[in-house]
Amino acid sequence: MNASTSDMHALDIATELTENGDGSYQGRTTPAYANMVGPFGGTTASIMMQAALIHPERLGDPIALTVNYAGAVADGEFTVTPRAVRTNRSTQHWYIEISQGGAITTTATAVFATRADTWSSTEIDFPEAPPAANVQRSTMTDRAPWTQNYDMRFVRGGFPADLSDEGEPDSITTLWIRDDPPRPLDFVSLTSISDAFFPRIFTRRRVPVPAGTVSITTYFHTDADRLAQIGTAPLLGTARALRFNNRYFDQTAEVWSDQQELLASSHQIVYFKE
Amino acid sequence: MNASTSDMHALDIATELTENGDGSYQGRTTPAYANMVGPFGGTTASIMMQAALIHPERLGDPIALTVNYAGAVADGEFTVTPRAVRTNRSTQHWYIEISQGGAITTTATAVFATRADTWSSTEIDFPEAPPAANVQRSTMTDRAPWTQNYDMRFVRGGFPADLSDEGEPDSITTLWIRDDPPRPLDFVSLTSISDAFFPRIFTRRRVPVPAGTVSITTYFHTDADRLAQIGTAPLLGTARALRFNNRYFDQTAEVWSDQQELLASSHQIVYFKE
Repeated sequence: MNASTSDMHALDIATELTENGDGSYQGRTTPAYANMVGPFGGTTASIMMQAALIHPERLGDPIALTVNYAGAVADGEFTVTPRAVRTNRSTQHWYIEISQGGAITTTATAVFATRADTWSSTEIDFPEAPPAANVQRSTMTDRAPWTQNYDMRFVRGGFPADLSDEGEPDSITTLWIRDDPPRPLDFVSLTSISDAFFPRIFTRRRVPVPAGTVSITTYFHTDADRLAQIGTAPLLGTARALRFNNRYFDQTAEVWSDQQELLASSHQIVYFKE
Repeated sequence: MNASTSDMHALDIATELTENGDGSYQGRTTPAYANMVGPFGGTTASIMMQAALIHPERLGDPIALTVNYAGAVADGEFTVTPRAVRTNRSTQHWYIEISQGGAITTTATAVFATRADTWSSTEIDFPEAPPAANVQRSTMTDRAPWTQNYDMRFVRGGFPADLSDEGEPDSITTLWIRDDPPRPLDFVSLTSISDAFFPRIFTRRRVPVPAGTVSITTYFHTDADRLAQIGTAPLLGTARALRFNNRYFDQTAEVWSDQQELLASSHQIVYFKE
């Protein structure tokens, strides 16, 4: 923490890392991004991203990040240890661990790369959605404090206000989302937003069963300059499950700019009970 | 290598690992699974899977595997070092490296878990495809020797026989695929098959540009017993790109049983030139 903390965005406080002098960094959980149990996994993923981004050996921009939630993160201090496993001419591979009290709670691999102009094309369609300004902002409950740091406007598949056992025909959610208060987009915030979908089992079954992400992989489709240009504009996210089976389901998601530009595609496997 | 090598399936030879006595294993590339440059990445992923599967500490079945191709694997010997980073009551997290001559060529994380009966559902549709027996088997070229270990029957988006610059409107490929000669399905073979799609840029643009997977993540939706029941039946695979931009594109793929059961969903980010 430093003297300017009060001026910092909550996400910058949550992802602030200080050097330990041995190649590792020290961080600490913040109440602002608490989830129902422990910290919001999207914030943990952003901390992994931040550890590579601020590292003096870092090359280029991230193109892939995988985060594995190996054990619960307790409230308080944690150590992040990034290691540049291999650096090539235009790509760099990272292995990163978060530990508390000597026990590894989270692992990650990241790939960074320098980009260059090439033939480009987006094959999938921008989801059907009215402009963000025409969609009502959701009122978040305090059951998941992290949600209060986002402006979320559900176009489809919102968090069920009245949980029942009726269920929905599919698990698709589409929403406009941005940091609140607004914060210029970067890879730290985009990483969190890529994990900002409620567990698909909630949407599909409307039953509040225990559920938690076990592993998430996000691919990034643009560079830091482009994210900076997008600034504080709302992003459109869409997510769905492919298969629920015997304790695990997968979720596939896309995050778009309001200019219909695919910024990230993100996939995760999630534990659920019952 | 052992005396029974001549009776072993080529995939079992390619993924055979011998203990070095220090927690690492020794493996070797085989010409049967060579790609245009170096070994087929699907085989490398299967070797990562095998290193965790045969480890005495292994718990349950794999639910997620991420493999990062950090550097070229040269023909010959390599060392595989799996480490159980954290073992919980019903989940286990692995970090695995392949190295040659002290340089890390490949990294992986894997999540294993014990499963239990729960509510289950598949949300996406089985691709439109005639039965495998009604689709002609493709004749593989010797440019990618690994393809000769598979029976591939393209329903849509086959490898373009006549590469031109006309291009296709999308990058979707759907095919029936199984090991050839037939080999009972297990997590080793399913891991390879999840990476057995040609680079989407070939399908979309019909231009033979340099391309290679940088990172792949596969989620597994069933257990070892169910894979064994499927045995040597053909699998249906389908793959497409979401966005190509500035040197990288992503691919999303699904692998189904012929009983329309989603076995794996797999995602990768791929380098391409031009």
